[in-house]
Amino acid sequence: MRVGLLAPIAWRVPPRHYGPWERVVSLLAEGLVAAGVEVTLFATQDSRTGGRLSAVVPTPYEETPGMDVKVWEGLHLAHAFGEAGFVDVMHNHADFLPLMFASLVETPTVTTIHGFSGEAILPAYTAYKDRLHFVAISEADRHPALPYRATVYHGIDFSEFTFRSQPDEPPYLVFLGRMHRDKGAADAIRVARAAGLPLRLAGIIQDQGYFDREVAPHLGPDVTYLGSVGPEQRDSLLGGAVALLHLIHFDEPFGLSVLEAMACGTPVIAYGRGSMGELIVPGVSGEIVPDEAGAVQAVRSVGRLNRAAVRAHAETFSVPRMVEGYLQVYQRLLT
Amino acid sequence: MRVGLLAPIAWRVPPRHYGPWERVVSLLAEGLVAAGVEVTLFATQDSRTGGRLSAVVPTPYEETPGMDVKVWEGLHLAHAFGEAGFVDVMHNHADFLPLMFASLVETPTVTTIHGFSGEAILPAYTAYKDRLHFVAISEADRHPALPYRATVYHGIDFSEFTFRSQPDEPPYLVFLGRMHRDKGAADAIRVARAAGLPLRLAGIIQDQGYFDREVAPHLGPDVTYLGSVGPEQRDSLLGGAVALLHLIHFDEPFGLSVLEAMACGTPVIAYGRGSMGELIVPGVSGEIVPDEAGAVQAVRSVGRLNRAAVRAHAETFSVPRMVEGYLQVYQRLLT
Repeated sequence: MRVGLLAPIAWRVPPRHYGPWERVVSLLAEGLVAAGVEVTLFATQDSRTGGRLSAVVPTPYEETPGMDVKVWEGLHLAHAFGEAGFVDVMHNHADFLPLMFASLVETPTVTTIHGFSGEAILPAYTAYKDRLHFVAISEADRHPALPYRATVYHGIDFSEFTFRSQPDEPPYLVFLGRMHRDKGAADAIRVARAAGLPLRLAGIIQDQGYFDREVAPHLGPDVTYLGSVGPEQRDSLLGGAVALLHLIHFDEPFGLSVLEAMACGTPVIAYGRGSMGELIVPGVSGEIVPDEAGAVQAVRSVGRLNRAAVRAHAETFSVPRMVEGYLQVYQRLLT
Repeated sequence: MRVGLLAPIAWRVPPRHYGPWERVVSLLAEGLVAAGVEVTLFATQDSRTGGRLSAVVPTPYEETPGMDVKVWEGLHLAHAFGEAGFVDVMHNHADFLPLMFASLVETPTVTTIHGFSGEAILPAYTAYKDRLHFVAISEADRHPALPYRATVYHGIDFSEFTFRSQPDEPPYLVFLGRMHRDKGAADAIRVARAAGLPLRLAGIIQDQGYFDREVAPHLGPDVTYLGSVGPEQRDSLLGGAVALLHLIHFDEPFGLSVLEAMACGTPVIAYGRGSMGELIVPGVSGEIVPDEAGAVQAVRSVGRLNRAAVRAHAETFSVPRMVEGYLQVYQRLLT
């Protein structure tokens, strides 16, 4: 089977530090290659894959000042769909604009919807709902107006995350996510201070105003911001923590950092929004809490969880399982 | 011959008040219909044409709060190029994104480049320069890196502009353009005051900050702002003026308001940037001046110009001439 994987061009595949959609595309690409699939990866020219890279965009726009996103996204998509005749299935991970290009070619296109930025983009999906094929990344993220072929959870690469049976001494909490109200960095700071534990924050600054107002003024010896961290630092940062604080203010479609923490054996304390109920087993791999007081209580109780059981739960979200899920979707389309 | 005319979806075709690209598309569509061409107009659903309207976007995004421009532009283009097989030539007036869609269909596509927003968009054009066909709207707007099939000047509808052999009494000057530094409303105010004549300004507020800082504080009994004006008010406003002040700070690709003023017999005083040297015959239809002092001098001298000669010069920019120019481009492509 020949599969064309269409990545976004915001970040490299695999991403150097941040880039969750690109990370999933990379894991899927290499997993499909390992499963014997002929993979053509449409991504930036600096991307890396064991499959075939087909690219016209030199570098990612988030890493290249002055690039016109609309121009290069258009060139990327026109190139990829211009090559669609050479694959059996196109698999779109690059949001909704590829749907419009897909409508002009014969090759069937599967679209993984990595998240909806808002109701205003829904017409892009509903216009093609009878002709294109959608995959959800969690049950929670399924939009009632759309039909889906399947829900396929993301998998992570367990070789990147070291299981740790004990957290570091002295103990600390960790926050890993974009600096944006959605992700709750400010909430994590308040909870950590109320619980009397240091907090280490990591992630890109997506909303500078939020960071300047809600995060920076509260940094100190006990609350430190590490910037955006690459794979190695992420592993030690997550694995050494008592818990990951994931006090989100939006219906998160998935939440890779939640899985990544659990892969290290680190339990997760989260608000029960979006996909959290699908990723976390309360009392096993973390706690789902209703408010900051509940989070403070959970910080005190999660130390009693068996970190090996946390890891074992995370392992149900493997790359081979993700690959198998998508292969089933492709095969159903082709028969 | 069957021609698909692809309009932007920012404004209706024809526009209700502002919308220069949409205005040109409308004039071309009706001109082609009059010339016996089978025209399919791809535009918003509220558009009007004597040809066939083919549309999926209900209303223009500049007139519809909350519309996601990227979604609807994508749906518009996918629809139009999905229908490309039913026309002999597609003619794109909707900027660079259609180039990417055009690359996926067999039907030849002509693109009128209505202006470059900056060098960062050039890769969109150079990527397709050997396969698609570009038309410039003035010699001044030709980019040296691109090949062009032709330059076709816009035409205007002379039935919308009443020739006036004399300006109104008491005399006044007029400014017609977007409220943006590019268009020089503030310069027009200074020149009018220095020349001792009242000024009437009209146009959409594109840059609210510019308007608030550079225009609003200087309004008074002698300098009035009328907002964006529709066809009838534009005719009387332009026709009654001693001159149109067009003191632009950018290389304007064309300049419909310059033609429209001249169509009323009203001379134009302009800085010599962009296409101005192609639209204005100094000493006949207006003056090209180097600075504000020159503009003040010209205000005093243009009253001596023969307004019938101004109109006669404008008439060389007719819709039939524009239609003929494009028909030649289409025919060269098809043979």
